[in-house]
Amino acid sequence: MLSRFIDKQIDYNGEQLRSHWAYENFDLLGDSIVSFRGGCDVRPEEMVDLADLKNKERIYSEDMLHFIIELFHLDLEKAICQQRLLIAILKDELQLRSPGAQILRRGDDLFDGDKKLTVSIATLSPISALIHLGINISSLNTPIKTAGLDDYHIQPRELARSVMERFCQEMEGINQARWKVRGVK
Amino acid sequence: MLSRFIDKQIDYNGEQLRSHWAYENFDLLGDSIVSFRGGCDVRPEEMVDLADLKNKERIYSEDMLHFIIELFHLDLEKAICQQRLLIAILKDELQLRSPGAQILRRGDDLFDGDKKLTVSIATLSPISALIHLGINISSLNTPIKTAGLDDYHIQPRELARSVMERFCQEMEGINQARWKVRGVK
Amino acid sequence: MLSRFIDKQIDYNGEQLRSHWAYENFDLLGDSIVSFRGGCDVRPEEMVDLADLKNKERIYSEDMLHFIIELFHLDLEKAICQQRLLIAILKDELQLRSPGAQILRRGDDLFDGDKKLTVSIATLSPISALIHLGINISSLNTPIKTAGLDDYHIQPRELARSVMERFCQEMEGINQARWKVRGVK
Amino acid sequence: MLSRFIDKQIDYNGEQLRSHWAYENFDLLGDSIVSFRGGCDVRPEEMVDLADLKNKERIYSEDMLHFIIELFHLDLEKAICQQRLLIAILKDELQLRSPGAQILRRGDDLFDGDKKLTVSIATLSPISALIHLGINISSLNTPIKTAGLDDYHIQPRELARSVMERFCQEMEGINQARWKVRGVK
Amino acid sequence: MLSRFIDKQIDYNGEQLRSHWAYENFDLLGDSIVSFRGGCDVRPEEMVDLADLKNKERIYSEDMLHFIIELFHLDLEKAICQQRLLIAILKDELQLRSPGAQILRRGDDLFDGDKKLTVSIATLSPISALIHLGINISSLNTPIKTAGLDDYHIQPRELARSVMERFCQEMEGINQARWKVRGVK
Amino acid sequence: MLSRFIDKQIDYNGEQLRSHWAYENFDLLGDSIVSFRGGCDVRPEEMVDLADLKNKERIYSEDMLHFIIELFHLDLEKAICQQRLLIAILKDELQLRSPGAQILRRGDDLFDGDKKLTVSIATLSPISALIHLGINISSLNTPIKTAGLDDYHIQPRELARSVMERFCQEMEGINQARWKVRGVK
Repeated sequence: MLSRFIDKQIDYNGEQLRSHWAYENFDLLGDSIVSFRGGCDVRPEEMVDLADLKNKERIYSEDMLHFIIELFHLDLEKAICQQRLLIAILKDELQLRSPGAQILRRGDDLFDGDKKLTVSIATLSPISALIHLGINISSLNTPIKTAGLDDYHIQPRELARSVMERFCQEMEGINQARWKVRGVK
Repeated sequence: MLSRFIDKQIDYNGEQLRSHWAYENFDLLGDSIVSFRGGCDVRPEEMVDLADLKNKERIYSEDMLHFIIELFHLDLEKAICQQRLLIAILKDELQLRSPGAQILRRGDDLFDGDKKLTVSIATLSPISALIHLGINISSLNTPIKTAGLDDYHIQPRELARSVMERFCQEMEGINQARWKVRGVK
Repeated sequence: MLSRFIDKQIDYNGEQLRSHWAYENFDLLGDSIVSFRGGCDVRPEEMVDLADLKNKERIYSEDMLHFIIELFHLDLEKAICQQRLLIAILKDELQLRSPGAQILRRGDDLFDGDKKLTVSIATLSPISALIHLGINISSLNTPIKTAGLDDYHIQPRELARSVMERFCQEMEGINQARWKVRGVK
Repeated sequence: MLSRFIDKQIDYNGEQLRSHWAYENFDLLGDSIVSFRGGCDVRPEEMVDLADLKNKERIYSEDMLHFIIELFHLDLEKAICQQRLLIAILKDELQLRSPGAQILRRGDDLFDGDKKLTVSIATLSPISALIHLGINISSLNTPIKTAGLDDYHIQPRELARSVMERFCQEMEGINQARWKVRGVK
Repeated sequence: MLSRFIDKQIDYNGEQLRSHWAYENFDLLGDSIVSFRGGCDVRPEEMVDLADLKNKERIYSEDMLHFIIELFHLDLEKAICQQRLLIAILKDELQLRSPGAQILRRGDDLFDGDKKLTVSIATLSPISALIHLGINISSLNTPIKTAGLDDYHIQPRELARSVMERFCQEMEGINQARWKVRGVK
Repeated sequence: MLSRFIDKQIDYNGEQLRSHWAYENFDLLGDSIVSFRGGCDVRPEEMVDLADLKNKERIYSEDMLHFIIELFHLDLEKAICQQRLLIAILKDELQLRSPGAQILRRGDDLFDGDKKLTVSIATLSPISALIHLGINISSLNTPIKTAGLDDYHIQPRELARSVMERFCQEMEGINQARWKVRGVK
């Protein structure tokens, strides 16, 4: 599994959540996790979560740390399990850096009290599974009450590297765990 | 997804990790999570992790809180993802009850410093996926350095109920998340 | 599995056979069966059965009882099995209401002698399986010889409710049957 | 798909429901449906339906018409759909031969009022899906209230041939239906 | 599995690699292999291999023998295995006709020294797997160093028939091999 | 994918074709190909090919070069494709070393005229796919007409290394090919 932090700012508008985006833009061939920093403003026509679209929710943040993952399988349920492991890892890494914070994971979201920290979605392309996870850096001007990395004095880039490293280890560990169990009755 | 805490003590020896154990013993028909309290001493012929068997590791605890999950699919990789979500949930629930503890998840294990808290395995039967997770209640007389719920003054039964409830919610949430995403290019 | 009879007339033109149609229009989130009454005139560009398209067959009826099913799996062969169970259920319910009729199922069609009662198709969207089944209410002005519910004096709405109820029971029964069988050699 | 009526009497005791039984005994290599006549008395250790085993139900008939199907896939849910199509076909063929009878299908069972006509199960072997369906010929001395082919004056052998022929057509029709549909959005 | 040699010249531009192309054009319903002769000039917007597109490689030949295969499954990895078996078969048939040539297969390409003989790709449509294989007839004016059937004095049509016949046998043999093995521990 | 040539002689009796054999004996954890030299005499109770068992064929050779492959998937059809690619690779490597020989592959067998060179089978364990391929070294005392590596003056160990290296490259190449194709219509 390949990983890359992109230093250039990229504003996420939903168009990045497509197959081979990491290959076409950063030459990452195969399962990959890419992280970058930038705004977040998803156009309705790029919205993947139909409940958001239906409720006319705006997905907006001035400044976020983004993760985009592509995994070459076609099992949406498995992709959602992998998305939630990613979010569990992000939660762990936040808590290590900000031990006093009371961050809770509910499904694919992180909260600190009534403040939302993240947006996330998992879906399928015709040849792969795709995950987007964004965590606020700034919590200013968001449509709902939010908290961001700035509020916890956490450096985005270093956090991104730790999250990516642990996610790659998790995926490899899961793969290896399959190799050493016998079946049961 | 069905859940049940069994009040009777059951010593886990590996024989419980088989298809329809929850149905035959507790009439739970379908995907299920069962929890109970008892010792843990897995016989070599019941060991599912061949690395443990090879390294002649003993899986032993005087008193544990056990979880046994049966899910009616046959994808081992997905079962391992689900196992790790279960362990992430257990970690969250431990931390809520013992905020000062520094519990870390590494793959399918929980640690507090150099003390191991859990044993776990995921495997397949001919018609289902099966997961065992045990967390020490007592940390006495274990073959390696361990910590247990008693060391954190956590009540097993109440913990078990919270873990089971959150795991059921997680599985249902994953299922529902599939229903509202559109595919991408 | 969710079901809903829609009182409003909807003319089926093929555009309804797409993923999340039931969610976007009727807030049905998950596996669903929807029934409604309306004309049927499928535009060539919406035809899913390429044999019909090739043979320039017109799919037309002045007034039909329609069923649209969405199931969140991606196995076309299984979807076709489920389609045929739906048609077997429709046949049973017709025969209960019109014991003298000699209705025969051939694959995904119902016939009464040389008169065709139904049109049906099963296909895949990127994230689900989809089934359409229409049974004539009127048999007037159809491009081939047909019979319709009016000819049997059967009330469409009450029939729709019975068919939907039995189909939901069938799907749930199939799911449950998986939970109680052991594998064999 | 291969089919064969076996003229020799074979008493079904559950041992016949295993992979390659049709190949080893009748040289049928591939997907197959076999029919034969004989008693039915399933030993507890051969019972596949754990609910029957749990309820200590006896599966017994003096004289039955049996069908054993082997399909080389490993999807239990699909196998149960195929089993129910088989039973829908059997119902149709019974009704053609005995138009006055009020036979109803409930899941994988056929009933005439409160009399049960059939026993059936679908399961998996390590390399295939397997289905057993038995319909009573005699209704004498059964543990519950039953009806049998003798009560309807239906000849077992001729019925078996029609059921097998239609089931083979159904399976081939399902396969072919996959080839001519385009996907939708 | 159906096969057909098309006598009419067809210039391959990538547009032929889509689902139901063989059905819509040649009435081949089901798994099929079609062969024809014609130029090869794939437009960038029809390129399926993103590495070619990225490297701005031109896929061009004045005259080629083409094979287009459609298989009704959705497993890309299996489709690539089947593609490579096709190329192994083509290599065998070339060597039989030109015993002195030193033809080597590397992945999905055939080479004679530094001369490339073939282009090939395997991909998925929403309802099938698709393979294109082209072998040069002429080696003139190609963007890289190539060899073609003319250089070996091999007749395209007769070669095509042998390759198609062996590929159909291979696919049927693979299918049959599944039917006669028992599982192991 | 891991590979290993075992210098110690191992007589193949069928018992080696089971899950985790490479891990338990040679510490190879994951997809693997192992090669070794030894006799071949498969006991009827270890025979996996039921046609051989039925025909009472003896699988015997005084001295063979063996390959045992374990791949952690459960798709028998794919495993048979992979088996045949292995045999195509073995054929290529034999021909490179013995250019004058007229070796032909028919399904999973290699022949030189009427002399058989190989035995092979592919099957499933509960958690993996398994392949055995044996090529005669000695052609003496075999139950049917055979040829062996000695007849071609080919060194088994060096051949084994080349075959294993190419098979690992093939599997990796197949995996990578999935990553760079876009889907089509």
